[in-house]
Amino acid sequence: MPQSDTGNRRIVLAARPRGLPTPRDFRIEETSVPTPSEGQVLLRTLYLSLDPYMRELMNDVGPAYAPSVPLGETMAGGTVSRVVASKNPRFRVGELVLSRAGWQDYAVSDGEDLVPLGEMARPSLALGGLGMPAFTAYVGLLDMGQPKPGETVVVGAATGAVGAVVGQLARLKGARVVGIAGGPDKCRYAVEELGFDVCLDRHDSRLAQQLADACPDGIHVYFENVGGVVFDAVLPLLNIGARVTVCGVIAHYNDDAPASGPDRLPKTMSTVLQKRIRMQGLVILDHYADRYDAFRRDMGEWVDAGRVKLREDQVDGLESAPEAFIGLLQGRNFGKLVVRVAGD
Amino acid sequence: MPQSDTGNRRIVLAARPRGLPTPRDFRIEETSVPTPSEGQVLLRTLYLSLDPYMRELMNDVGPAYAPSVPLGETMAGGTVSRVVASKNPRFRVGELVLSRAGWQDYAVSDGEDLVPLGEMARPSLALGGLGMPAFTAYVGLLDMGQPKPGETVVVGAATGAVGAVVGQLARLKGARVVGIAGGPDKCRYAVEELGFDVCLDRHDSRLAQQLADACPDGIHVYFENVGGVVFDAVLPLLNIGARVTVCGVIAHYNDDAPASGPDRLPKTMSTVLQKRIRMQGLVILDHYADRYDAFRRDMGEWVDAGRVKLREDQVDGLESAPEAFIGLLQGRNFGKLVVRVAGD
Repeated sequence: MPQSDTGNRRIVLAARPRGLPTPRDFRIEETSVPTPSEGQVLLRTLYLSLDPYMRELMNDVGPAYAPSVPLGETMAGGTVSRVVASKNPRFRVGELVLSRAGWQDYAVSDGEDLVPLGEMARPSLALGGLGMPAFTAYVGLLDMGQPKPGETVVVGAATGAVGAVVGQLARLKGARVVGIAGGPDKCRYAVEELGFDVCLDRHDSRLAQQLADACPDGIHVYFENVGGVVFDAVLPLLNIGARVTVCGVIAHYNDDAPASGPDRLPKTMSTVLQKRIRMQGLVILDHYADRYDAFRRDMGEWVDAGRVKLREDQVDGLESAPEAFIGLLQGRNFGKLVVRVAGD
Repeated sequence: MPQSDTGNRRIVLAARPRGLPTPRDFRIEETSVPTPSEGQVLLRTLYLSLDPYMRELMNDVGPAYAPSVPLGETMAGGTVSRVVASKNPRFRVGELVLSRAGWQDYAVSDGEDLVPLGEMARPSLALGGLGMPAFTAYVGLLDMGQPKPGETVVVGAATGAVGAVVGQLARLKGARVVGIAGGPDKCRYAVEELGFDVCLDRHDSRLAQQLADACPDGIHVYFENVGGVVFDAVLPLLNIGARVTVCGVIAHYNDDAPASGPDRLPKTMSTVLQKRIRMQGLVILDHYADRYDAFRRDMGEWVDAGRVKLREDQVDGLESAPEAFIGLLQGRNFGKLVVRVAGD
């Protein structure tokens, strides 16, 4: 069922998941293509971004930075879209924009939430390596983590949309980079293609010891986007004055009950105190006004110069989104996960 | 058994405590007064500071910022001491100094660790309101917490050596201050004498609800020196962008086993992320070089002008130190706890 000119397919939240979502938590619906009112544009989705934060929007209470998706409503998400009709003088038909159109073929917008993309050789990069995930890596690593040459930076989900950029930016800044990723293929890619110094398999039961061996000078910067056992392996290795950017805790997004003991909080707080750790939560929405222009300039240069490599994991067709998203939460993607909704 | 001119009483660590220390974990010994070598001074202890961090030094493995006290060795601690003999040209007999002489009547020093105090009307303040605890409050609140006028600051152990200064400095900066303290007398004192806006009794089973009621605009700055149930009450009230200074976790210093569940870490990390919290550990030793002069100047002015009030809880005699210290860990002191070891 490809995109059509007359019908709008949308994927709605059918049920609130308990734990890992299943395909039954989503439903695909066909509606008519909306008609833009005065001041609005009609957008056709080319690419849909799938990102871990969406799992939190499926809960009854959303995170502090975004509301929950109501039951029966279209799943939220960033898209690269093309303006196919315009009643807004700021946008012309044919223009490419970054949008929050969600998991559907068509959407209308008053333009307030749109970012014009100009001409891009690979428009989908606006959802990944030149977009939100890479911007997250940029602010979280450079502004908050502040790695210095020779310091050791550790990042989980090392080949994911954020982690891969974190590691490469840390290398650019002269730091030593230890990644943690799921499986030997991803680890090999992180070292051989992305230039990580070491990459460890998070499935290995000896992870804690391997991480200690890989960090003989301790850890100066930890970019947290995983939680769980990775955090446990990192905590005892943090150096005095270490910086921890808390960007995500994907290991916990599917928790549907308070975690059982032991209680790891007292030990964590003691470590924060004794090691004078600075831990900071990052929601990238806060930083567009101040830092987005610098990011676009720097990242564009680095990508053009081949100093940062970007890998996409594209799946075809809107209908593939739920399965691909479930895989993302299990670490089955390899690179930034993007749904190619329509040929251009 | 008062201080003598010929014998040196010292209190040594007799056993490593499990949980709350008992008097049997300490032993008082009588040795001879040490003789200073060339370049050394002989110090007579006037006042000994008792502080929660000492509990951590009693463990087999000390905190990252200080070594453990070896079994059979003199308990560590800051003192106000008088130079009674000098073979060091930088110090003259009769001079008052801040020292790390520990829990004993006499000590020798090569002078490297001594801070001349000049003449002070109340020398013991160098251990509290003009010393380490107040300096901790100054850096932890002003540099890390950065309260703005109208913001809400929450501090536990509100009448303790650190908390009382945190609250008063927050008021000086125009913030609203909610303290948490042990019992109605301390709460009344915090409000009536120290000028806190509200002070809640940590023993009250309705603490979480009372704190929520006392913070209708949420919490902008939390100064953590308690841990435990106080932290649990604070966490859900933290605002977006809140700052948390982690200065101590006195509730956990006596833990002798990993805490039982539920595991509060995932919820805490999610909150750090969603609320973009900046949490930072503070060990005051790091900040003397940069900030101590500013602190002494500012704090001296505020105390002289009556804008910051200081309360001491003095106990008499070195032999009282163990019992007083155990009481400190239970919150039985009321104000900065100091042992008056010798009349001057």
